[in-house]
Amino acid sequence: MAGKKKKRIRKLKSKVRDLRSRLAAALPGTGAASTAPAVSPLAPRAGFPVLPEIGGVRFAAAQAGVRYAGRTDVMLAELAPGTEVAGVFTRSSTRSAPVLDCQKKIGGSASGGAAIVVNSGNANAFTGAAGMEAVAAVTRQAASVLGVPQARVFTASTGVIGEKLPHERITAVLEDLRADLSPSSIADAARAIMTTDTYPKGASASVEIDGERVRIAGLAKGSGMIAPDMATMLVYIFTDARIAQDDLQRVLSKLTDSSFNCITVDSDTSTSDTLLMAATGASGVTVGSGRTASGQAFEAALADVMLDLAHQVVRDGEGATKFVEIRVTGAAGPADARKAAMSVANSPLVKTAIAGEDPNWGRIVMAIGKSGAEAERDRLSIRFGDILVAENGWASPDYREDLGAEYMTREDLVIGIDLGIGDGSATVWTCDLTHDYIRINADYRS
Amino acid sequence: MAGKKKKRIRKLKSKVRDLRSRLAAALPGTGAASTAPAVSPLAPRAGFPVLPEIGGVRFAAAQAGVRYAGRTDVMLAELAPGTEVAGVFTRSSTRSAPVLDCQKKIGGSASGGAAIVVNSGNANAFTGAAGMEAVAAVTRQAASVLGVPQARVFTASTGVIGEKLPHERITAVLEDLRADLSPSSIADAARAIMTTDTYPKGASASVEIDGERVRIAGLAKGSGMIAPDMATMLVYIFTDARIAQDDLQRVLSKLTDSSFNCITVDSDTSTSDTLLMAATGASGVTVGSGRTASGQAFEAALADVMLDLAHQVVRDGEGATKFVEIRVTGAAGPADARKAAMSVANSPLVKTAIAGEDPNWGRIVMAIGKSGAEAERDRLSIRFGDILVAENGWASPDYREDLGAEYMTREDLVIGIDLGIGDGSATVWTCDLTHDYIRINADYRS
Repeated sequence: MAGKKKKRIRKLKSKVRDLRSRLAAALPGTGAASTAPAVSPLAPRAGFPVLPEIGGVRFAAAQAGVRYAGRTDVMLAELAPGTEVAGVFTRSSTRSAPVLDCQKKIGGSASGGAAIVVNSGNANAFTGAAGMEAVAAVTRQAASVLGVPQARVFTASTGVIGEKLPHERITAVLEDLRADLSPSSIADAARAIMTTDTYPKGASASVEIDGERVRIAGLAKGSGMIAPDMATMLVYIFTDARIAQDDLQRVLSKLTDSSFNCITVDSDTSTSDTLLMAATGASGVTVGSGRTASGQAFEAALADVMLDLAHQVVRDGEGATKFVEIRVTGAAGPADARKAAMSVANSPLVKTAIAGEDPNWGRIVMAIGKSGAEAERDRLSIRFGDILVAENGWASPDYREDLGAEYMTREDLVIGIDLGIGDGSATVWTCDLTHDYIRINADYRS
Repeated sequence: MAGKKKKRIRKLKSKVRDLRSRLAAALPGTGAASTAPAVSPLAPRAGFPVLPEIGGVRFAAAQAGVRYAGRTDVMLAELAPGTEVAGVFTRSSTRSAPVLDCQKKIGGSASGGAAIVVNSGNANAFTGAAGMEAVAAVTRQAASVLGVPQARVFTASTGVIGEKLPHERITAVLEDLRADLSPSSIADAARAIMTTDTYPKGASASVEIDGERVRIAGLAKGSGMIAPDMATMLVYIFTDARIAQDDLQRVLSKLTDSSFNCITVDSDTSTSDTLLMAATGASGVTVGSGRTASGQAFEAALADVMLDLAHQVVRDGEGATKFVEIRVTGAAGPADARKAAMSVANSPLVKTAIAGEDPNWGRIVMAIGKSGAEAERDRLSIRFGDILVAENGWASPDYREDLGAEYMTREDLVIGIDLGIGDGSATVWTCDLTHDYIRINADYRS
């Protein structure tokens, strides 16, 4: 009885929050209508994690005023000579100038040191010839200030599309950034690349290889928006392991498929998505290819870090109030499983039902039906957590709507779908679709 | 302790009431505080059109109380002996029992008359064996009451998924429906199949063939929702032309590709989408195949009716405040053009920008980039109406943001995209994504 009332209070509170944000949207200019989003309710309770220092990597952040005032907006990561860099990038056919530049540079000689320069506030995408000129100006100056080859300076930009990047504001702070470099400043770097992310994102792991410790630390941004811009996801991961570039690239690409490529906030793909990983070798520990014991131990640790960061990006999805795992099993193959899972994860009707804490499994049936994955009504089953909701082409005889409704009040949800056809499986993660998504993307124009 | 919680609940409830009324005051006319949607701002100004009677077709509507009270929820259309019926249905792999039944019946002998029975309030989808039993019960009884073959009774159901259709409520009103049949009751039929459509949808055309007049009249529903259900689109078109079933099916399928298959409200595909067309032959005018002059004249008239109905469905899209035409030209082929157009039309970021009257062409670039269509940044151009916005990989030198912003305040928008690669083209229609979409689909549970 008391539990029921508690739940009622929680629901009413969330309704009040929702109405407040809608009212704020309707009455721009009132105090309530601030563009600064509160921290996502799904943010990690413990705040930004304590990340280990990674030998061979130093960070700094600065206020360059690219677009924002009163906050840091450029980060620099300096990588020691010998650091191998691997990368995975957006497949968008309209990708940004920094992405095109990075793609060319991946795989180059590691002998001379390297650097990563990232700015927020401007995406330097769809900016014509000026886009590559800006990248050249920043990489040239960073190379000169840090004494590293220009071909080893990787950049990224996140923010407005179609506006010229004021690169002179970035080059103007490079000397200060160099002076501030510190192995312990990774949290500052994570903050500098936020757009309207509501919290900085970091994760780490360590793994023992041949009795020695190797560390991995990563930072990410994502799902942030500055009206009138679009989200970008940027991820940077560092390790002190010594690993060949092609092995690093292979494990990074492989793990991307089951982490960052398995999350969706709103089905829109950025022009700037960038994932870079740097292995400095400073630990002196050599990690072999994926077939070796060391390679497998390293892969497992890296998988943890990547999945953690990917989940943090979803948990900061625009307007998100629910974190949702969609597990598809029994598909004709892995591609079909992924199709079905992504169709459910991207369905506006499923996502609004979840926002409304509505156990509307009919919409899940609909999303499977439209996905293009092989499916048969009478073989399909649907679960909310452990609750069997539907099977044999209808609601399960034991299913009770109040159980489903109670489950839906949770913050973290697991939707299980078994297609009953083969043994293909896939798991993807998404968030709900709320008024705040509309508010963030429609109501506030720059 | 319990008393304290009760008081807390009371206080929160009153807060919710207060915020709702403030929100309603802040958003006059949007219906933000009520479950009953006002008529879409994009509804035809003139209301439901005057539709011609079609010889050989009679309509009736009744209140069966399938789910709704105080409104009609079943329509009957009786078709004279000799009427040819063609149909196009959802491709969902979880399609409803009525859809499966209709698909089997298309192409049968036209000699014995036919009927269409449609209910709103319950979709009879994902209802196991009970689904087909309900269809059998309704079609058997309708056949008996009207004296037509059961194999010529076509049904559709729209509303809740996963709940048993109370078919006895429908069969109970069939006698009354028969008694009420009238050639002039098409508007009543259009109203009876609405779910939360905000207006009934109808369109007509007439065409002279060999000096004689042939009439076409159609009705549609779409984009209506009853939480916790999903939208369905139902379309019924009638003509007094005499046309062979295979010719009718061919022209209907062909025109569907450029009308109903080119609209999207939210990218979610119904389990129940049904388009049926009946040709009674009552005019005595014979229409030939698509290669004949009569076939071409008929096709042009039918194309007008179908596009009109398709546009009316978009204009009643959930929460819609803008009607948006996306015209893609210069694609590598028609499939690529469609891919790019649909990617823009379904992008939540593009749709929220339009809702915010934000000329955010960067999001259009993003949506083209992710579409999978062949595209090159420097060949792409974007227009808002006649305004050239972007070309040669950047904003057009003559483009001024204030012109774009002014254009976006219009109710009907045309976004032109030339990919500059080949001569593939496609045009699709969509609406914006607003708070009311979330309200309709998340906030109010049944």
